[in-house]
Amino acid sequence: MHMVIMGIDPGTAATGWGVIRYEGQKAVLIDCGIIQTVPRTPMSKRLLTIFNDISGLLKKFKPESLVIEELFFNTNAKTALVVGQARGVVMIAGEKYGCDIFSYTPLQVKMAITGYGRADKNQIQQMVQKLLKLPQIIKPDDAADAVAIALTHGFTANFIFQH
Amino acid sequence: MHMVIMGIDPGTAATGWGVIRYEGQKAVLIDCGIIQTVPRTPMSKRLLTIFNDISGLLKKFKPESLVIEELFFNTNAKTALVVGQARGVVMIAGEKYGCDIFSYTPLQVKMAITGYGRADKNQIQQMVQKLLKLPQIIKPDDAADAVAIALTHGFTANFIFQH
Repeated sequence: MHMVIMGIDPGTAATGWGVIRYEGQKAVLIDCGIIQTVPRTPMSKRLLTIFNDISGLLKKFKPESLVIEELFFNTNAKTALVVGQARGVVMIAGEKYGCDIFSYTPLQVKMAITGYGRADKNQIQQMVQKLLKLPQIIKPDDAADAVAIALTHGFTANFIFQH
Repeated sequence: MHMVIMGIDPGTAATGWGVIRYEGQKAVLIDCGIIQTVPRTPMSKRLLTIFNDISGLLKKFKPESLVIEELFFNTNAKTALVVGQARGVVMIAGEKYGCDIFSYTPLQVKMAITGYGRADKNQIQQMVQKLLKLPQIIKPDDAADAVAIALTHGFTANFIFQH
């Protein structure tokens, strides 16, 4: 299987992104980073920055799949609304580009990466480092989360591919 | 004051929209309706429909202001996430078009239209009908809500204009 996957951890202050490529069963990190928006500017401008930057990354890396982190269900409504706004913008950027779009919950990410539903952030990041044979863990956290969700989709897609 | 205002009641199944024009202190209904999306299709496709249709309405009616309903704060996180996704998409459509973007809570709408914070849907719709001198109340509800929020902004903007 050859496949380019872009993972996204959406947020209005910082949206993490990470691109991996599968060469057979082997996952390689292509690039990752965060999109930061300017605090105290109108939300609509911040969302447009996210939309434009994601659109640019899609053109650059040409992923077949865009994978977006789902929210914890136990968060509060105000947080959910704000994250939802960023998610919606990322989703239409992917849809306009023509990606297949997938979502996984934080629990699914933990299970896929570490096999353990109560893994903490550090355990996930160390496992991501190991899986991608990186010299150190990925920083900042939002970029690391984005790579983790891209890997989660890779495992799932590989599993389906093999069976 | 001459001003065209588009109000939006965002939702993934149906997004209400309404356009009013102020001629001095007098508000006139230009048009209103709903954008419906196909159930059981991927959310990203439904959001792109909303984005494309809102973008088309902005080009057609050329509003200076886009006014989007805020969510009740006492809703649950799952609803907030879904509405947030639709809101985000509407916001960047407005931002791309160059509108000024405003938000009001349902309480602010009730206070502006009826002067009464516990007004029910029917009371608001009857007052909207009266204010715009319409032969009957606006249907469906989502379109009526969108017109109500456009009027709310009109009152607020008129108030600022006068003082």
